Amino acid sequence: MRQAEHIELAIHPKPDHLTIHDWIYSEIRAAILSGRLKPDVRLPTTRDFALQNQVSRGSVVTAYEQLIAEGYLCSYTGRGTFVSKTLPHDLAVRPASRPSLSPKHGTLSRRGAMLAQSPFYQESRQTDPIPFRPNQPDVEHFPFNIWNRIASKRANALRDRNMGDLDPGGYLPLRESIAEHLKYAQRIQCTLEQVVILGSAQQALDLCTRLLLDVGDQVWMEDPGYPGANRIFAGNEAHVIPVAVDKAGMNVERAIEMAPHAKMAYITAAHQSPLGVTLSLERRLALLAWAEQNQATILEDDYDSEYRFDGIPLAPIKSLDSSGRVIYMGTFSKLLYPGIRLAYVVLPDWLTDPFLSAVSLTCRYLGLHPQMILSEFMAGGHYARHLRRMKMIYQERAQAFEYACREKLGGEFHVNPITTGLDACVFLPGELDDADVARQLSASGIEARPLSFYGIAKKPASGLVMGFAAFTPTAIAGGWEKIARILRQ
Amino acid sequence: MRQAEHIELAIHPKPDHLTIHDWIYSEIRAAILSGRLKPDVRLPTTRDFALQNQVSRGSVVTAYEQLIAEGYLCSYTGRGTFVSKTLPHDLAVRPASRPSLSPKHGTLSRRGAMLAQSPFYQESRQTDPIPFRPNQPDVEHFPFNIWNRIASKRANALRDRNMGDLDPGGYLPLRESIAEHLKYAQRIQCTLEQVVILGSAQQALDLCTRLLLDVGDQVWMEDPGYPGANRIFAGNEAHVIPVAVDKAGMNVERAIEMAPHAKMAYITAAHQSPLGVTLSLERRLALLAWAEQNQATILEDDYDSEYRFDGIPLAPIKSLDSSGRVIYMGTFSKLLYPGIRLAYVVLPDWLTDPFLSAVSLTCRYLGLHPQMILSEFMAGGHYARHLRRMKMIYQERAQAFEYACREKLGGEFHVNPITTGLDACVFLPGELDDADVARQLSASGIEARPLSFYGIAKKPASGLVMGFAAFTPTAIAGGWEKIARILRQ
Repeated sequence: MRQAEHIELAIHPKPDHLTIHDWIYSEIRAAILSGRLKPDVRLPTTRDFALQNQVSRGSVVTAYEQLIAEGYLCSYTGRGTFVSKTLPHDLAVRPASRPSLSPKHGTLSRRGAMLAQSPFYQESRQTDPIPFRPNQPDVEHFPFNIWNRIASKRANALRDRNMGDLDPGGYLPLRESIAEHLKYAQRIQCTLEQVVILGSAQQALDLCTRLLLDVGDQVWMEDPGYPGANRIFAGNEAHVIPVAVDKAGMNVERAIEMAPHAKMAYITAAHQSPLGVTLSLERRLALLAWAEQNQATILEDDYDSEYRFDGIPLAPIKSLDSSGRVIYMGTFSKLLYPGIRLAYVVLPDWLTDPFLSAVSLTCRYLGLHPQMILSEFMAGGHYARHLRRMKMIYQERAQAFEYACREKLGGEFHVNPITTGLDACVFLPGELDDADVARQLSASGIEARPLSFYGIAKKPASGLVMGFAAFTPTAIAGGWEKIARILRQ
Repeated sequence: MRQAEHIELAIHPKPDHLTIHDWIYSEIRAAILSGRLKPDVRLPTTRDFALQNQVSRGSVVTAYEQLIAEGYLCSYTGRGTFVSKTLPHDLAVRPASRPSLSPKHGTLSRRGAMLAQSPFYQESRQTDPIPFRPNQPDVEHFPFNIWNRIASKRANALRDRNMGDLDPGGYLPLRESIAEHLKYAQRIQCTLEQVVILGSAQQALDLCTRLLLDVGDQVWMEDPGYPGANRIFAGNEAHVIPVAVDKAGMNVERAIEMAPHAKMAYITAAHQSPLGVTLSLERRLALLAWAEQNQATILEDDYDSEYRFDGIPLAPIKSLDSSGRVIYMGTFSKLLYPGIRLAYVVLPDWLTDPFLSAVSLTCRYLGLHPQMILSEFMAGGHYARHLRRMKMIYQERAQAFEYACREKLGGEFHVNPITTGLDACVFLPGELDDADVARQLSASGIEARPLSFYGIAKKPASGLVMGFAAFTPTAIAGGWEKIARILRQ
């Protein structure tokens, strides 16, 4: 039975951000969802509703139509408009009907809880780099004029390009330029099909882990080692086997003793993160022999070896790999600028198809524009020129850093000769806690990352990882003066 | 004991792509790694080597220095250069020493084997869309002039921007524009902090799955349903519960019976993929009540509801969500053009921090440039204008599609009225196998995706999913004429 009396509906004042019909719609919907308007109740006619609330009838009609279309109301010709009777009668007891309810906390999965502990998340809130934030390239000397000229030209070229779905492997000419560059600069022989462009080194780590490791599978990692990799392994529930690092890099013999059947070895062979040592040739060969014998994969993360100051960069493990055991990964974030969002992997042939499939499933493909710009930048010789130029600038800054550190705190602090990259590892007197020191410096406007941040199973020696590449020699000298002052207080 | 006799080393002819010193380096290295040059053997002097091979002595010196730096050779003043004696003596038996060895196949992880079955991978090799490829927006009418003008302006602005690390949540003004747009267009009330920009809907699906589901956790999915979601769940080893779809969308009552404790429901409520139906209000409310009671999450994938032709789009489930149970996801790939690579999620408050952390760990952050362009494109009103314009164009094409289908094959094929989006679902006579028909059409240059491609547990009715949005009415009519001809043969 229909209720003969229509109701007079009290509604709240209109908020500024809503149109009149959206306001009426929201008020009626809220009244239904909160149980104030029960199923089968008749609503005022649009004319009465408009008069009661002093709005135009058209707005009321629009709101009613919306609510009818969504199933809240039903209209019967000649009888009027009713709250839908198919709606549940117990709407009022549903939590959704209490708008004051504070959002409940949901539950993360086990792996979700690990993914929620990114080492990059807090950092991402930072602003411009201040001395001595690590992992920062200099962007002042980046040839923006050239880059922007190419970018503008390519922006206008978008129309002629296929704006439809693209190749998950990346822009072919860029893959070719990278393959070509690796041949000369790193002695890696690879085809362009083996090169896959990604948005970041983290994406490369994540995809390799998921493709090759199941939950509980073992992976060797240098200890201390790169937290970005450690967290990716944890987020994928792989079992990290921390392996000590000495002057010749990861102790491969020890790793074979500890976990001979690991599925993967993650290694920063050229410039160990964070200690800066290089993996010896003997260990490279031992690592490769182990991987071949065990069908394991070596994930060689070469994040900054192009910036090697003593003239002769060692050939990567990948250049020795004739049996498809090594994945080589590089990034342009550190070589050009972080915001570029381009990285790549060089894959063994057998992994290419599964990898491209995984890219297409988890991200489809990357946008074309930055890839086109970088490709043209490389083809025009600007890339090689920029690397040469920055190598000289970074070398000068590395020397300024070593000099200032020794001059100001040479008795207490120890810095190894800096041979590669953007960062230095500075060792502190054993009695100083590096996290304490970093906090103390941070309070006075100096950034440095404690070595303990990189420790996995073992607490590393007390030390600080400090970036020098993004700072002028003057800023570097000033920074060390400040550090000396802070520590002497 | 040093071997007094130095050897005379036979080397292969120089390949064109190598410099002379790289060639010498490679030949000596290969001879060492293959065991032809044993540890502790003395090499010719650089002078003799240069004479023997008719190259400049400088090139030989460079090659020797590289090999010494890498640890293959040792040099003792006054005694000459020797193969390093710390190298393993059994190098020759290592597979790496046999360059003819074909690359071995490695083993994918269980989840890797699933990631290797992307529904997008084969498709990605396709070229320009031909009728009736599904999921293709029209790109001919895209306002490239405006887009390119903004892109050029922004390209030149790069220099002034922070090129360092960016926010994992995306470009703030874009997040704000999206929050604002959703308020008006979808009745979703959210703050800009709840909006996170991603590179694709697949990335959104992947991150939500990993954050909320562990291996073996249950997730409801429409059957037939979107393979891109189904494969993401499989690739993360979640347990998909296929739920039948009828005229009112996913059968929520049935889902509750089958798997009341599922952790997630993935749903295309506005426009079910692939059948095109809309989830009824009763079921929306039942779904929400279930999610609230069970602390489950609803993943509402709204991929094309902005293109609704009958005037009144239904408000998304998210607009009813006052207790933080719904994640709403949208993409610009279908609304603007696929190559844009921008999508977004609207998160409940409790999930925002873990989600941003997971983004920063697995991809760091997106590039700024496309986000800046889209943000300005939206702020300038071009976005809303483009959607309005395309809605009219698509509606005309939908009508042309329905008309041509009925005219040519009305007796045999059945197409429901097209209310939303870019694709239609066409039902075939029961005795025709849809995969067979699709293959037959494909051989004659017509694309269509069999409905069976979307089936999970149950074989769906025989049908074809066909895109109409990217094709002119003339092309649509021509396409149907061709189909009729093919099928009559």
